[in-house]
Amino acid sequence: MRDLSNDTLFLSLNAATVRKKWNLSQIIEGCVRHEIRGIAPWRDQVAECGLTTAAQHIRDAGLQVSGYCRGGMFPATDAATRKSNIEDNIRAIDEAAEIGADCLVLVVGGLPEGSKDLSGAHSQVEEGISEILEYASDNQMPLAIEPLHPMYAADRACVNTLKHALDICDRMGPGIGVAVDVYHVWWDPELEGQIARAGQNDQILAFHVCDWLVPTNDMLTDRGMMGDGIIDIPKIRDWVERAGFRGQCEVEIFSSENWWKKDPDEVLKVCIERHQSVV
Amino acid sequence: MRDLSNDTLFLSLNAATVRKKWNLSQIIEGCVRHEIRGIAPWRDQVAECGLTTAAQHIRDAGLQVSGYCRGGMFPATDAATRKSNIEDNIRAIDEAAEIGADCLVLVVGGLPEGSKDLSGAHSQVEEGISEILEYASDNQMPLAIEPLHPMYAADRACVNTLKHALDICDRMGPGIGVAVDVYHVWWDPELEGQIARAGQNDQILAFHVCDWLVPTNDMLTDRGMMGDGIIDIPKIRDWVERAGFRGQCEVEIFSSENWWKKDPDEVLKVCIERHQSVV
Repeated sequence: MRDLSNDTLFLSLNAATVRKKWNLSQIIEGCVRHEIRGIAPWRDQVAECGLTTAAQHIRDAGLQVSGYCRGGMFPATDAATRKSNIEDNIRAIDEAAEIGADCLVLVVGGLPEGSKDLSGAHSQVEEGISEILEYASDNQMPLAIEPLHPMYAADRACVNTLKHALDICDRMGPGIGVAVDVYHVWWDPELEGQIARAGQNDQILAFHVCDWLVPTNDMLTDRGMMGDGIIDIPKIRDWVERAGFRGQCEVEIFSSENWWKKDPDEVLKVCIERHQSVV
Repeated sequence: MRDLSNDTLFLSLNAATVRKKWNLSQIIEGCVRHEIRGIAPWRDQVAECGLTTAAQHIRDAGLQVSGYCRGGMFPATDAATRKSNIEDNIRAIDEAAEIGADCLVLVVGGLPEGSKDLSGAHSQVEEGISEILEYASDNQMPLAIEPLHPMYAADRACVNTLKHALDICDRMGPGIGVAVDVYHVWWDPELEGQIARAGQNDQILAFHVCDWLVPTNDMLTDRGMMGDGIIDIPKIRDWVERAGFRGQCEVEIFSSENWWKKDPDEVLKVCIERHQSVV
């Protein structure tokens, strides 16, 4: 297991952690100021900044892009919407390539509006991925399915376990892997085995950290800073590294009532401190 | 698949659905008034009523007891607390037997206070169950592990999939099975297969229904009435019945902002209507 106690090289900042107070340029400058070496930008902030400018700024700053947020959201009620979702994913691949991302993160989408057909949504997800995979491969952009916590199955992502994500990867072939976010998968009794399985095909493309708070007061925006919750993050990082992962630990914290309200410079200091002590 | 379109025989009312406004006697009388033929009482309301009185009242009313709520909550930081948890489960078994319950529902408990040791909690759950199983069997009281939704893994139950629950059952031997609650398991891509597996050993001891609302505004008390959410309940009931289940559909709705505020007689009418139309 890598020693992170003095590290910032393997720390990446998901822009969502500080985006309520900083635009993308400010986030990039914040990373540089704090010697954080990686970033995971979001599409809307990239668009706001301008794709070429954002890409140049990130390159000039010497930041690794641990992931691009995000593609996915495949299921839809009608074929026209599914087609436009595919087109949007193609654009996301182009952007991710331009920005130099290690992978395009896929939040696959939940049930279409008004639908109760979970297995139908699963099928639509696989169809969607299969329609963009070749284009992604041609553009050397790995796709990373991020299984989300089952509490998001209805409205955000109907792929909710690492096993399900890897089953899809196995059916798809090369060019696709997973993003392992401790927040989404910590509860899974099969996690250790599935991480090992992912390692056998080098399918772990990203590793995200934050923490699960007890109590959790909001299903979407009450994630904790690493160390403030109940996830045994070092144990999961150990599994991930035993499986061969050598990438960055990407801090992604949605926290409307706490971290999003703080001075981002303070947030980054705490991210570094916790990265070095409890991740 | 059974035709429930004119049925009340296979409908059971979990007391939690109306307990904010009615005590146990009122709930029993409400069931009789609406010709609901089953009930699942909670320990605190039974204690309030008096165990013998409650048991007599339920028998006199001719109600089947689809489950007794509840045992479990095994993990604890220290051995003394774990021992007292076991003793409390023994009392719950006695009560369930006295009340004539079909099973004692086990909500197994989450991480002990301050712990991040999920696999340790899993072990404590199995140790706890193994310490009460013989006593339960001697008293002809089946134990039903209820896998809870993974969003409760930290603080309520660290067994969150039907597969995990059945793996435990298989290690334990006879006298134990599962309670399948659509709210907790609907998202699981392995649900159909695991329900079939449970059927092979007659391990489905209870079937609970309510619905998953989109959005869900509270992690504990924002469950929906059947038909108001996105769960394909008939599909899951079909799987459960194909697996041999012939018991009651137990309606269990935690709903602080909606159903708990309504006149319980109205709630029971809606429960019956939805049982007959969308379950």
